[in-house]
Amino acid sequence: MRELTLADLDDMVLGATLLGVGGGGDPYIGRLMVRQAMEDYGTVRIAEPADLDPDGLVLTIAMIGAPTVIGEKVPAGPEYTGCIEALSTYLGKKPVALMPIEVGGMNTLIPIAIAAAMGLPVIDADSMRRAFPQIEMTVFTLAGISASPMSVADEKGNVVIFETTTNQIAEKLARAAVMQLGMANGISCYSMTVSQVAKHGIQGSMSYCVDLGRKLAAVQRGEEGAYDAFLDFAKAKKFFSGKIIDIDRRTTEGFARGTLVIEHLDDPARTMRIEIQNELLLAFEDGKPVITTPDLICVLDHENAQPITTETLAFGQRVDVIGMPCAPEWHQPGMLELVGPKAFGYDIPYVPMGGEA
Amino acid sequence: MRELTLADLDDMVLGATLLGVGGGGDPYIGRLMVRQAMEDYGTVRIAEPADLDPDGLVLTIAMIGAPTVIGEKVPAGPEYTGCIEALSTYLGKKPVALMPIEVGGMNTLIPIAIAAAMGLPVIDADSMRRAFPQIEMTVFTLAGISASPMSVADEKGNVVIFETTTNQIAEKLARAAVMQLGMANGISCYSMTVSQVAKHGIQGSMSYCVDLGRKLAAVQRGEEGAYDAFLDFAKAKKFFSGKIIDIDRRTTEGFARGTLVIEHLDDPARTMRIEIQNELLLAFEDGKPVITTPDLICVLDHENAQPITTETLAFGQRVDVIGMPCAPEWHQPGMLELVGPKAFGYDIPYVPMGGEA
Repeated sequence: MRELTLADLDDMVLGATLLGVGGGGDPYIGRLMVRQAMEDYGTVRIAEPADLDPDGLVLTIAMIGAPTVIGEKVPAGPEYTGCIEALSTYLGKKPVALMPIEVGGMNTLIPIAIAAAMGLPVIDADSMRRAFPQIEMTVFTLAGISASPMSVADEKGNVVIFETTTNQIAEKLARAAVMQLGMANGISCYSMTVSQVAKHGIQGSMSYCVDLGRKLAAVQRGEEGAYDAFLDFAKAKKFFSGKIIDIDRRTTEGFARGTLVIEHLDDPARTMRIEIQNELLLAFEDGKPVITTPDLICVLDHENAQPITTETLAFGQRVDVIGMPCAPEWHQPGMLELVGPKAFGYDIPYVPMGGEA
Repeated sequence: MRELTLADLDDMVLGATLLGVGGGGDPYIGRLMVRQAMEDYGTVRIAEPADLDPDGLVLTIAMIGAPTVIGEKVPAGPEYTGCIEALSTYLGKKPVALMPIEVGGMNTLIPIAIAAAMGLPVIDADSMRRAFPQIEMTVFTLAGISASPMSVADEKGNVVIFETTTNQIAEKLARAAVMQLGMANGISCYSMTVSQVAKHGIQGSMSYCVDLGRKLAAVQRGEEGAYDAFLDFAKAKKFFSGKIIDIDRRTTEGFARGTLVIEHLDDPARTMRIEIQNELLLAFEDGKPVITTPDLICVLDHENAQPITTETLAFGQRVDVIGMPCAPEWHQPGMLELVGPKAFGYDIPYVPMGGEA
């Protein structure tokens, strides 16, 4: 068990923005929540599964909705504590720790702030090591762990508890509720024991997020060799540098969707198109897929290497497109059906990062 | 406490079809369910509140969805027992009786069948004494009773429990869940004590339904003076006899909606238009509202006086349009905001039955 420091927090925010692959909510708001929690409650503790009772209950907590709405509807608190309390009461058991469901944007930081408020540690693990737009898109689903019982709450006191037969119907029901509850709500799902987290979670996600953010911060400070060190650490590759020439955005079926077109800085004949569903999902160069989900597509400001979230993408921005391989824990049977291009309705093959078949 | 007989059942089915004002689901399927329950479990008991422990828990049970779907997706059982069991577990208390939320179509009969299966009586009361398409449209809402905690279930094992701040958001959330769960589900809401039912329910609804059905059955048998006796008993009036010349149907936002146009049998210059949202809501003659919700609009076959449900309305049918005043319990502060024309988005005044302003 260790304490999260203020320096960690800044690196974590940067790392989480990057791993949010454009989605996961505005990290600035998440940072404010954690800063406030640090002031109000003192210590913010990060735990390994080994630090905790193996049979202890772990609850996840996250924001669910559309990032475009989150920016306008700032988190209040009761939507998060409300769904944890409802699920805890429903299960008849109190949690020993909280856990992020994804490490990316807001949803890395909310569990920290809420755990601090509840006097609980946060487990250094998650189920994506990136952000994904749908709640069934976790390594827990691949391990056969149910997302339900699951709770969704708003800031007004409305709470919904779900018992579902599949994680896919859990997603559909949660999304339908969120569309009625203002498109920015709290969700708690995949309740499990500490030993299940140890066995099936992606370990060290939060630490990875801090370390990755630290490497990127060095790039932003313009340190010698920092860009290569960052790419090395992330096993990442720069695919494209260009100017945004088109951005089409729409909020449909409970998601922020969009299409981004980038023209190459050196060769205007080269264009990259990126498809968005809350997160950046697929990158095509001249019609050919080059980076595909579950691998990560990160759009950085070309000048200052700041990751750009989908809601702040704008015409004329000069950007770098970085591809990063997904966490190795994803590579197991069922991955492509769950989080590959076809899972999002695109009839294209998964192109393992680097472009090899 | 008394037993429901087979003769009662047939009259009840007819009365429920009439009080369903076109909605409430296919009563034929409901009748089969009760018949089966009578065979499987023996006695079907109807109770007055006075027969039961005043502090005992009463749960309602109903089908929620679109009647157009019910005809194709026959009730299985687990969607009803599932939501009662889930709510009972959630409340930590077993019910002493079930109650219909509405008396109209399927939803009069389902509580009887499910209560028989659970060895419980059904209370002779409801909250509408007709069918309404939305769950907040009850005299319980007027009395300030919460629809939540509320449960919705499907036949596959998916169950959702809701805690809501208003009965309006309860409706929106339940509807959103139903749209994900196949549009024909079980719902249990407005859990309350026997003494609350005695104070706030519409008493004797089931008996009224049986009595009304008996009067209509006499009409159908062609008994002398039966039509007048039926209209007298129901305080009803025949407004129009005509031929259906247009029927427009659509299933949108979780409801079966439609518009019906009838041309007068004796005077083709006279037309009646009826607006539908699961139930028949408003009748206009030559553009002027003549029967308006919450008063009842019943469409009967002109030849045999059989009430016609909205999903079986068809071009060319010769029909009588009967208007019936709503239960007197509706006439209290808040009625028009909750169930008047404006509650359904129509900017027309409520025309008390008979046409007086």
